[in-house]
Amino acid sequence: MSASSGVSGGSPRVAELIERIRPATAAEPSAVQRHLDSLTKPPGSLGELESVALRLAMIYGDPPPSFESRVVFVLAADHGVASQAVSAYPREVTAEMCRNYARGGAAVCTIARSVGADVVAVDVGVDADLSAVTGLVHAKVRRGTRDLASEPALRAAEVNAAILVGAGLVSGRVRGPTLVGLGEMGIGNTTAASAIATALTGAPLDRLVGPGTGVGLAGMARKRAAIEAGLGRLDGSADPFEVLAEVGGLEIAGLVGVALGAAGLRQAVVTDGFIATAAALLATRMCPAVRGYLVAAHCGAEPGHRVLLEALGLRPIFELGMRLGEGTGAALAFPVLGAAGALLREMATFEAAGVSGPRAEVP
Amino acid sequence: MSASSGVSGGSPRVAELIERIRPATAAEPSAVQRHLDSLTKPPGSLGELESVALRLAMIYGDPPPSFESRVVFVLAADHGVASQAVSAYPREVTAEMCRNYARGGAAVCTIARSVGADVVAVDVGVDADLSAVTGLVHAKVRRGTRDLASEPALRAAEVNAAILVGAGLVSGRVRGPTLVGLGEMGIGNTTAASAIATALTGAPLDRLVGPGTGVGLAGMARKRAAIEAGLGRLDGSADPFEVLAEVGGLEIAGLVGVALGAAGLRQAVVTDGFIATAAALLATRMCPAVRGYLVAAHCGAEPGHRVLLEALGLRPIFELGMRLGEGTGAALAFPVLGAAGALLREMATFEAAGVSGPRAEVP
Repeated sequence: MSASSGVSGGSPRVAELIERIRPATAAEPSAVQRHLDSLTKPPGSLGELESVALRLAMIYGDPPPSFESRVVFVLAADHGVASQAVSAYPREVTAEMCRNYARGGAAVCTIARSVGADVVAVDVGVDADLSAVTGLVHAKVRRGTRDLASEPALRAAEVNAAILVGAGLVSGRVRGPTLVGLGEMGIGNTTAASAIATALTGAPLDRLVGPGTGVGLAGMARKRAAIEAGLGRLDGSADPFEVLAEVGGLEIAGLVGVALGAAGLRQAVVTDGFIATAAALLATRMCPAVRGYLVAAHCGAEPGHRVLLEALGLRPIFELGMRLGEGTGAALAFPVLGAAGALLREMATFEAAGVSGPRAEVP
Repeated sequence: MSASSGVSGGSPRVAELIERIRPATAAEPSAVQRHLDSLTKPPGSLGELESVALRLAMIYGDPPPSFESRVVFVLAADHGVASQAVSAYPREVTAEMCRNYARGGAAVCTIARSVGADVVAVDVGVDADLSAVTGLVHAKVRRGTRDLASEPALRAAEVNAAILVGAGLVSGRVRGPTLVGLGEMGIGNTTAASAIATALTGAPLDRLVGPGTGVGLAGMARKRAAIEAGLGRLDGSADPFEVLAEVGGLEIAGLVGVALGAAGLRQAVVTDGFIATAAALLATRMCPAVRGYLVAAHCGAEPGHRVLLEALGLRPIFELGMRLGEGTGAALAFPVLGAAGALLREMATFEAAGVSGPRAEVP
C-alpha cells in the first residue's frame, strides 16, 4: 500500500512506482502564461493549443523540448467475457491483429509512421501462442482474463504483474523527451472498460455502455448484464486495484503501468480511446499526480469516453467520431503536441520582433 | 466572364484559370468506400479521418500519394477600413508581421516547421514599403484597399490582379502532390470577411461579426456600421467578383487565386480561419468544382466561421477555439491529411492480413 495514493492492493514494487511520481511542476503556470502572452499573436488566440503548450511546459519546463521520440505502446490481451458474445468480432482477432501490428499493417502503424512515431506492440495477455511472432514484445502475464461475468477477472498478483510490464516498457524505452501514447487491442475490452468506468465514476451504466466495435442492441444488453454481475462483486468499491482485479483486463492494467511509469519519468502521456482513457483514470486514482502528465488526444464515438474525460477534467484535441482504439488517436495527436511545444520554443515575442501590441484606445 | 461559373467580372486570364478546373473525380467514391471497409478495422471506426481519406482519394486517386510537399501561403495586405478603428491592433502590425514571417518567428512559421511544411509569405497589398525585406514574396497590387465603409475597396482590375498573384504562387510552387494551406494577415480583415460572408450567405450580420483579434463591443458596432455601408452598395448582389470589389481585400482575393490555382492543378486546398474560409467560399462561387478540393482544417472562435463552413458543407478537423489565422490551423491539419492518405496507401486488408471479419451471428 502506498501512503501517497490511499489505495490498497499494489505490490511493493507497484507502490514504489507510484511513490516515484512527482507533480508536474517543471514550470510556474503564471510565468508560462506570461510567456505565451508575450508571443506575436493576440493573447489566447491559439485557443486549446496554448493549453497544451502550458501542459507540456509544466511537464518538461518552459520551453518544452522538441519531441524526436514519439511512441505508442499497443498492449494486447484477451478477455474471458468475450465468451458472452459481447463483441461483433471473434476473439481470435486479438491474436490476428497482433500479427498485423508486428507487420506494420494496422491503422496505428500507418498513422504512427506518417507522424514520425514508433509503435511498440506487446502481448501482455493474448489467448494464443504468439511466441514465434517477431516484432512483438512478449510479456504475457496470462492467456486472457477470466470471465468477469462469473468470477474475478484477475488475481491481485496478475494485476501487479501487468502494471509492471507496462512500466517496464516505458523505462526500457525512454532515453530523452518522449511522447508516450496509450494504445490497446483486446476483443471484449469495451465491456471491461465500461465496468471500470462505472465503478470509478459512479455514472449510470447506460451512459457507459456503447456499441464498441459495432455490436447491436442485444449485444449491448449482454454487455450490461455481464458488467452488472461483475460490479455486484465490487459492492461499490472504487479502489483501482480491486476494480482491475474484479472487472479489469491485462492490457488495461498494462496501460496503467505505462501511465504510471511515464509519469514517474516525467513524460507526457497521451490518452487514446475509451479503453485507454479508462486506464488513464485508473492511474490517476492510484496517484493523483498522474493527471498533470496527461494530454487527451480525442473524444471518440463510444459514449462513455466523454464521461471518462470529464472525470479526468481533460479537454480532447480531436472529436472525429473515432472508435478504433489501438492508439490511433494518440498517434494522430502527437504532431499537435509537437506544434504546441514549438510555440514556446521558437515563436518570437512582440518585443524581439518589433511588433506593436494592441492599441490602448480601442474599446 | 466564365461560361462555367455564371458570374461576372473575371478578366480573361481569370476566366481561363476557372475553366481549367475539373471536378475532383480521380476515384469512384463507392470504390474508395469499399477499399476503406476492406482495411483491418471495423467499418467507419476511424470516423472523420475516413472522410478525409475519401476526399484525398477523390482529388489524387486511390491511394493518395504521400505529401512530402506541404506549403502554407500567407498573403498579407492592409485594409482602408482599419481607419475606422475596427481592430484592436494598429495597422502597422500587418507590415511588422510580414517581417516576422520573413524571419520565421510567427506562429504559422513555428507550427509549419514542426509538421514539415513551408511558409510562403507574400506582400500582396501591404501599406508599407517592404521591398527590402528578404524572405518575402513581393507582389504588391496596391498599398491596401480603400475604405469599404465609404467607397468600393478595390477596382475590378485590382481584384483580378490579386487573384492572378495567388494562382501564380501555386503554379510556381507545385511540382508534385502538394498540400496547399490558405493563410492570411491583414489588420482589419475580419471586417472585410464578415462583409463577404454576409453578402455570400445571406445570414444575419449579427451571426457574422465577431471580436476578431479582440475588439470590444464598441469596436464590433463600428465593424457592423462599416459593413452595412459597404453592403448597401452591393444591393444584394452575391457575385463573387462584385463582392470582392466592394468589400474585399487584396489578401482575400489572392487566396481566392490560390484556391482556384490549386484546384486547377488538382491539389488539396486546406482552409484556415474565418478569413481564409471566406476566400474559399468565394472561390466555390466562382467555380463550384473547387468544393471538391477543399478540406476544412478547423472551426475557430470567430462566430461567422461556422456559418461559412456550413455554407461550404465542410466539417472541420479541429475545434480548438483558435482565432489567429495566418494559416496556423491549416498547418496544424497537414499531418491529419498525411495520416488519412496513408491509411489508403499502407493499411493491410482483412484478407491480406488474415484477420477475421465480424461474426455473422452476433446481433
